[in-house]
Order: sequence, then C-alpha cells, then structure tokens
Amino acid sequence: MRMRTLVGRRYKERPAEATLDSHSLLLRGAYARQVANGIYSLLHPGYRVVRKIEAIIRDEMDRVGGQEVLMPVVLPRELWEETGRYQAVGSELLRFKDRTDHDMVLAMTHEEGVVHLARHEAGSYKQYPFMIYQIQTKFRDEPRSRGGLIRVREFTMKDAYSFHRTAEDLDDYYRECAIAYHRIFARAGIPETAVVRSDSGMMGGKIAHEFMLLTDCGEDSILKCDTCRYIANAEVAEGRIPAFPEDPKELEKIHTPGKKTIEDVTAFLSVPLHQAAKVVFYESDSEGRPVMALIRGDLEVNESKLARLVQRQPVPAEEATIRKTGAVPGYASPMGARDLRVIADPTVGESNNLVTGANEDDYHYRNFNLDRDCPDVEIADIATLREGDGCPRCKGALQMRRGIEVGNIFQLGTRYTESMGMSYLDENGQAHTPIMGCYGIGVGRMMSSVMEARHDKFGPIWPISIAPWEVHINAIKPGEGGVGEVAGKLYDDLREAGLEVIFDDRDERPGVQFADADLLGVPLRFIVGAKSLANGNVEWKIRGTDEKGEVPVEEAAHFARKWVDQAYAEIRAQANAKTEPF
Amino acid sequence: MRMRTLVGRRYKERPAEATLDSHSLLLRGAYARQVANGIYSLLHPGYRVVRKIEAIIRDEMDRVGGQEVLMPVVLPRELWEETGRYQAVGSELLRFKDRTDHDMVLAMTHEEGVVHLARHEAGSYKQYPFMIYQIQTKFRDEPRSRGGLIRVREFTMKDAYSFHRTAEDLDDYYRECAIAYHRIFARAGIPETAVVRSDSGMMGGKIAHEFMLLTDCGEDSILKCDTCRYIANAEVAEGRIPAFPEDPKELEKIHTPGKKTIEDVTAFLSVPLHQAAKVVFYESDSEGRPVMALIRGDLEVNESKLARLVQRQPVPAEEATIRKTGAVPGYASPMGARDLRVIADPTVGESNNLVTGANEDDYHYRNFNLDRDCPDVEIADIATLREGDGCPRCKGALQMRRGIEVGNIFQLGTRYTESMGMSYLDENGQAHTPIMGCYGIGVGRMMSSVMEARHDKFGPIWPISIAPWEVHINAIKPGEGGVGEVAGKLYDDLREAGLEVIFDDRDERPGVQFADADLLGVPLRFIVGAKSLANGNVEWKIRGTDEKGEVPVEEAAHFARKWVDQAYAEIRAQANAKTEPF
Repeated sequence: MRMRTLVGRRYKERPAEATLDSHSLLLRGAYARQVANGIYSLLHPGYRVVRKIEAIIRDEMDRVGGQEVLMPVVLPRELWEETGRYQAVGSELLRFKDRTDHDMVLAMTHEEGVVHLARHEAGSYKQYPFMIYQIQTKFRDEPRSRGGLIRVREFTMKDAYSFHRTAEDLDDYYRECAIAYHRIFARAGIPETAVVRSDSGMMGGKIAHEFMLLTDCGEDSILKCDTCRYIANAEVAEGRIPAFPEDPKELEKIHTPGKKTIEDVTAFLSVPLHQAAKVVFYESDSEGRPVMALIRGDLEVNESKLARLVQRQPVPAEEATIRKTGAVPGYASPMGARDLRVIADPTVGESNNLVTGANEDDYHYRNFNLDRDCPDVEIADIATLREGDGCPRCKGALQMRRGIEVGNIFQLGTRYTESMGMSYLDENGQAHTPIMGCYGIGVGRMMSSVMEARHDKFGPIWPISIAPWEVHINAIKPGEGGVGEVAGKLYDDLREAGLEVIFDDRDERPGVQFADADLLGVPLRFIVGAKSLANGNVEWKIRGTDEKGEVPVEEAAHFARKWVDQAYAEIRAQANAKTEPF
Repeated sequence: MRMRTLVGRRYKERPAEATLDSHSLLLRGAYARQVANGIYSLLHPGYRVVRKIEAIIRDEMDRVGGQEVLMPVVLPRELWEETGRYQAVGSELLRFKDRTDHDMVLAMTHEEGVVHLARHEAGSYKQYPFMIYQIQTKFRDEPRSRGGLIRVREFTMKDAYSFHRTAEDLDDYYRECAIAYHRIFARAGIPETAVVRSDSGMMGGKIAHEFMLLTDCGEDSILKCDTCRYIANAEVAEGRIPAFPEDPKELEKIHTPGKKTIEDVTAFLSVPLHQAAKVVFYESDSEGRPVMALIRGDLEVNESKLARLVQRQPVPAEEATIRKTGAVPGYASPMGARDLRVIADPTVGESNNLVTGANEDDYHYRNFNLDRDCPDVEIADIATLREGDGCPRCKGALQMRRGIEVGNIFQLGTRYTESMGMSYLDENGQAHTPIMGCYGIGVGRMMSSVMEARHDKFGPIWPISIAPWEVHINAIKPGEGGVGEVAGKLYDDLREAGLEVIFDDRDERPGVQFADADLLGVPLRFIVGAKSLANGNVEWKIRGTDEKGEVPVEEAAHFARKWVDQAYAEIRAQANAKTEPF
C-alpha cells in the first residue's frame, strides 16, 4: 500500500474524549472513527488488524473442529420468546418492528439463533459432539459505551456453540476450547492473558471463565493469589476473611437515638466496624419474597453473588417493602422480621457479640450472636472480597487487579436446547436433550486491548501477527540522490518476498513521516535516505525497541523476510507453550 | 472435514416453497435455512461458498487499489437527513429508535456512511483518486423476498466507493472497475455474465450499468440486439418502434357510447390498436403537476423511463385528479386538458390519424395528429420496448431476455459529496467537491445465481473456485476390505497436498452417499470401494460430466492436485480474457 492515498488523517494531540491510551491511539492513528455513540467505522489500517485477528481466531476454531456458519443480525421475537429472554433481557436488547409490524430484535448473542439453526439438523447421536461458530456483527444497546472499541454498541464477535451428549464430553471440549483461547491470545501477541472463574450472568449455566488481560484501565476486578495459581473475577471469587470469635455474651438492648448507619452506631458505641452486623434490604428474590442480606459491618454485599442466590438482579428495597416485614429502617436486624428471606454471610456467624438493629426506632442490640439469636437463617457467601483477604486454596493473600475481558466461555447445560425443544436419538432410539457450551471473543475489543497492552506514547507497538503491515518504508527526500527509486524498488522487492508493506511515498518531512510510522506501529521499518544510501545501505529499525542498524540495499528484502519469519516463530512458540486450560 | 459431524439435514424432495431450482437446492443441500421472511442462516457448506466468493471479490478490489474498511450496520438518522434520503426512501429503509429514543436506520447502502467516514480524512488533492470498500451485512426491508438468497432482507454485500477530481478520472476508473467485475464473475465460474446499461434508481447519477446473469428465471428484463453488441435493461433500453405515417385527415368527433378502453373503442371502430393514442394519468411530477402520459394504443408506458422524467415514482392518478384537469376518464386526450404536464411518446407523433378521447363522455376523435392538434407537448421516450423492435444502434432486432442482476456500478457524480459537504483543496488552495462512483455486488445472491446457472436435477455443479470443498471422498462399506483405512489415508494425503476435502466417513448406503455428494456439488470425487481396491485403484468422477476413471491409490493425491490446478488455470484464463469493460 502506498501511503499517499491511504484514507485517514493522523494527528498528534490526544483527543479530549479519550480516557484510555488505546482510545486515543485508535483515533490519532486513524484506525477508527465514531459514527454515533458506541458505533464506529474502521478505516483501512484498523480493518487490517481486525482481519488478522479474525484469521487467527478462525484458524484456532477450525483446529478444534469448528464449522463456520453465518447467522442473521436481525432475529424474530419468537425465537427469543422461546427461551424467555425476550422478556428477561433489558433494554440492551434492541427491539423494533419491521414494515409488516412484526417484532424483531438485533441479536446481541446467538444462543437462540444457533439452536434454531441446529435443532432440526442434528437428530442422530452419531453427529455429536459438534461445534458451530461465526464471526459476525452484533448489537448491544449499551447505556454507556467507553474506551474506543472496548465497550461499544455495534461490534464484531466470534461466537461458538458446542453440542454434546454428556456433561463429561462438554467438560473435555470446554478444556480444549480454553487451550484454543490461550493460543489465540498468544498468537495475537498477548500471551499474558489470564483465565479466571467468572459469573455466567444472563447466559445461565454453572461454570464460566473469562480471559482477562490484566491492565490498570480494565473495568473488571480480579482477585489473584500471591502464592498459588488461584485467580477469579471479584463477582465469584471466594476467599478467607478474618473472623473475630469471642465467648458469647448476653444480648443487651441499648438506646442509640438517631444512629441509623452502621458507621454512626459503632462510633457512638466505640466499637470497631467489624463488631457489627449490618442489614441491606432488596426488593425480592425470584419467588417475590423481600431479601435481607446480613453482613459484617466492615464488609460490603457482593450483588453478583447475591444475584445468583436470589435468581435475579438485586434491586434496593423501598421503605414500604422493609416496613412490611416488621423491620425498622436504620435499626433493622433479622430478629423479629417475618415474611422475608434472610441471607447471612458466614462472617456474621464466625464473629461474636455484634451490634445490630433492634427493629425499634432509636434502639440497637449489643452482643448479637447469629447461631444463638437467629439460628435458622440461610448462610451463604455474599461478601465482597478485599485486597489482602486470604486465598481460598492456600495460605496466600489475595491481590486485587483490574482486567479487560477479552474472551469468555460458558458451560450452558440444557437451558437453551431444553426450552427450544432440541433433541437427538441415541443408539436405542431414545430422545435426549443435547448439552451446550458457548465461547465468545469480541474482535474489536481485542484490537483495542492489544493496543492498550502494547504501546508507547508515540503509538501502538503491534505484534507481527496482527500488525496492519509487516514492513514500513520511509523515503526521506525522495527526489534526492536516487532515494525515491531505491525506495520504490525496495517496495517491489519486499512484496515480491511475500511481505505486507506500507510505503510512505509522500514528500513529507522526516518528522511527519516518523510520527505517522509510529502511529501505524508496524514492527520493521526501513528508512531510505541519501546519507546511508551513499554507502549503499538502508537503515532499519524495530518499533518499540532500540534495535536498529543498516543493511546493504540489495540484502534488505532478505533481511526483512528473515526478521519477520523469526518474529512469527517466536509468536508460534508462545502459542505452542499453552497446553494447560486453567 | 468429516461428514459425520457436518450439521445439516440434506433431503431429496423439492420443498414446496421453492420457485427456483437454486432455491430448492439451497435448502435440499442444507446450504441455508430461513429464520424469518427474507432472513437466512448459512450452514457450513453455504458459508464456505460465500467466503470463497468474498475472497475473489476482495482480491479483485485490492487489484484496483481498493482500501477495505468496515462501516456500521446501524446508522444515525442525521446522516440520512443530510442527503435527504431519510425522507425520500420508502419503508424498505428500516427505521427504529434506540434506548435513548434516538432515530436510527439499518443501512441498506453506505453512500452516507462512506462520505461521513471520508469527508474529514481526504482534504488534499494529493490523496485522490482513492477507493474504499467493505464486505458487510446490509438490511433492506423488502416487501417480497424471493428465490432463496436472490432477494432477501438481510444480506452480505460488497460495496465500493471511489472518489475523483474529474469526471474523466471517474470514467477511467469506472471502466477499470467494470473489468474487475467481469474478472470476478469469470473467476466465480459465470463468465457469461453480461454488462447492460441500467437505471440509477434511488442512487442518483446519470451513468449506471448492471451485470446480468442471463437466465429464464431472472426478474429483470433485458433487451439485446441480435446483430450488434447493444444490450440494456428494459428500464432504460432504447429502440426503433415501427411508425405508421399517413397523410393527415380532418379531425372528426364520433359517438362511442360506453367504449372506455382503447381495446373497446378500436374494436368498435374496426381500426388496429396502433391507430390509437391512449392516455395514462399519474398523480404528479416532482413539482406537483398531474402527469398525462400519451402513448400509442399498442404500446405500454415504461414507468422507469417516466420516473426519470418526472423525478419521482409514478403513482396512478385518482379520478378527482384527472377531473381537475378537465379530462374525462375513459375519454381523455390532451386536447382541452389544462394545468397538467403532458408527456407524449415519439411514436404518437410518428403515426397519423389516430383515435383518441374527446374529453366528453361517450365521445372520441378520429384522425388525431399530434403535431397539428397538440403542437406544444413534451416529447420523450416513455415506451416499453417489445421483442422484435429495432436496435437503436444497427439494423438488427431486439430480443427480450431475463436476467439476475449480480452486480451494479454507478457514476454518482457529486450528489452525496455535495449534500454532505465533502471537499478537498487543489494545488492552488481552492476547494472542490469530489466526484463519486459506487460499485456493488450481493454475495449471497451471487451464490444462488451460480447455483441457478450451474446445476442438474441432483444438485449444484460448483466451479472449482467457489466449491465448498475441492475434493469429495466416498468410502463404500468402510468396514470391508480395508476401504475405511485407504479412504482415511487418502483423506490425509489429499489435505497434505493442500486440497480442501470433504470425507464421507458415515457408514451409509452408496445411494445415500452419492445423493449427498451431488447435493454438495464438489467438482472431483473419489469413490473408495472394495472392487476397485482389489486392483489397487480408487475410482474418480467429475461432477456434472461423464468423465470418470480409476487411478492407483498411491497416485490419487497427485492426480487430484493436478486436476484441481488445471481447473483453476482454466478459470484464470477466462478471467484474464476479460479486458473489455463494455
């Protein structure tokens, strides 16, 4: 490609709207442009990166036996009715009417689509297991898009769906796919991507993992043991929280006028926060009962954990809901409350003599002991872990990290196949419901993530495997000393050697050319200039390192071919080293 | 690929909904499945064909200097407001509101999108000309989808947009793109595709061409000279229609009670249809005037031609509209009518002494002569040509053909760049508006079209270049005489030789296997069976021909490689022979 006609205005200034470096470079390098909130067009260099990421994904999906298909972006309401998600999913599912007044959605994921596609096509056990995938446009009407392509409304996603006869078979394949994912990230130049246990969210199913690129600007919180391999999304992480056991003392009611918060009442009584049991009310569980979460005063309720227990997204309770249970807002405890579901975090029972509400205005109790005073409540982990809490697997401590989710995998079970009536016949003519797994990667987000992980202040430092081009040529003052001719010949030679080349054939100052080259982030650069050319040489430089040198003009193409091959070999070795799923 | 896990139920019976053979085979061969009216999923074999078509298109677009990008499916209303198409385009443009109540559309074409993308990125004359393209999902809310993937609502399209400084430069590039299109169709195995002059429709611009695959089931009518190279879509075709000149006679009013149609009145008066001038009324032109089309009694009005003249889609007039002009429905003529636009086809003036309405109930005139009786009307070609009418270029006669439009190209001029305020500075710092061309190909429609042009009753006969696989292996009774082992080894050897292979590893009867092989339509087939294997041979067969034979097992991979290479070489030669744009 000659740079003269490359469409895209690159620039120096950090754009005001960019919160992330990758977002800034996405715009400064003319990789992408926003069309509407969370909706982008990709310019040529951006689309080249995306296509290379797609090719890597496709290759690894084919390697684990995937069949590539293409499902529609627009799906009819009926499919989403079958699984109940037409009602269950919020306004991020974009719903509209077509010209015949038929309800349609813009698919944000394709479990419904794939079961619709496969349910009449795989009726014999002989066809199992199989995996179907696609790389395709999706739309999710996000309330807040952010970070360039990190969180957008329209995006390209690889989504894969596997179908199995047994849970064991799914489990085996799930591990195979996890390795394929590690290989994908390694091949895309981010081998440090970690797999973490995660919440399955709106997808359902019990086992789920996310692939996280650990970076300070990530929007997910991850807990990671400083000693063993334990790592999990904060939404599901388990841990050891220190307890404060004492001999139980007698329950004592005390006057605490106007002390409605746990901070106020513990300060008033001069006890530490952890010597209190605090109550957080939510509107209802899936059966409509109000939910009282009981947690130690120094901890917070983890609403993702709670959501799994109550089978819905927890919504803070209205005062009327609280009053109906007999509890008194500001002075609440489980004691005396009725017609509700109480869920107590284990930390409440492991500490003694806590301060808690008396369900009477201006009164609390001292010396609350859960197993004595409320023996029958449901005990479950609903606590948000903190940096320094203990690892659940070893004696280490948990560290808190931030990460960008670049992929996810789910064991879905039969949620979709069952509700949509998919079945196959076994060896004896008996019908069974297939068990599903699903496996997603956001392609554009992955481009932005690599940019976030691999850049300097001048631009991205692309791994060879997903760089928009492999080699960049600068011709400095092309009109002088045969520079233009040599550069042009080098361009031809490099392409002849099978390399992807961007050739800066503009008569621009070196400063402009080099700034643009940095923004395009191509790994290997040749600078053709009169000075080195006088010795028969061209300069070379490796993006993001101090490596540079000169090479005789006639050896440059060979040098480049060798360097690029070596760079790929290193990437391949990193991918081949990925043999452990978790 | 092993066939055991290939998802897709193939079957024998022609599905009731299929009107075209290609539609039937699309479903019978499990290439695609309908999800909703005009919305399809592609199964793996279908998507393989599509991906190969896309690769050919991409290759040829890159060859003419295209920069691949990706624009969004969902666009904001504002962009379509800028060009006026938000209002001008009918309900095939799907409009909806997002969660913040913002008006959005599902893009059916991307002139707005591409000018939005390029308008701030190509401000210098040095960057011109350039071409941007994408291969991407589009949605057009068609009232009537048909023919499998021939006319659908959601589809994948390659759309390209070029930007130029001068009309001459656009014209040169337009010719280059036309050759690229010929090469694409030749490489996809339909070199017979013809380029025809066409209407630019909603796209605007003056010059447009369509690439037509001539087939009886096409929905377009094409007129083609039997002598010279003239060929055009009936919407724009010109031709010589025989005239019937006579010496003008005196105008004579006659009583024609109840004879309201041209057929009735000519029969009543015992004159041929061509000796009448008939009137067709339309609601209005772009300035709101009612339109009277005047045409010879034996001809029909071509509403595409009329639409270009009146700058809007002609809508038949209500009786009230007609009455307001003073014309009398059933007895109308231009004589005495007022406050309207009369457009007369030249054939009316070239014949004499016609019967036409007297604008009075139950009365007509004889001996109407346009230049004498209505000297000032607008004369323009609005006639629908008929098989046998004369070629406009030579003395030949026009033949009527049917065709499927597989591609189109347009010289758009400055319609979009002007309304959206795109400009560049020339050498002297003067601002100019770039001139655009655009170039479309429907990918799924192309798959269906090739299927329509290349099939027998058993299935498609895919050209090697877009076949889902290059080689098909049947193992007949794989459990006997080492058949399974030899077939498995052949499968490995063929893949080792770089070939794409589908291996029927199911223990199915030969009849079932062969029917499935025909439906998959792979060019080269090997049949591994005990009988030929006894002689150390496997059978081979070429789909769609009588060619078959045997080859020693150990030479089969070499044989296949050679055959496939030769098939590609033939395709390439056909493409290279395409050097004339029109």
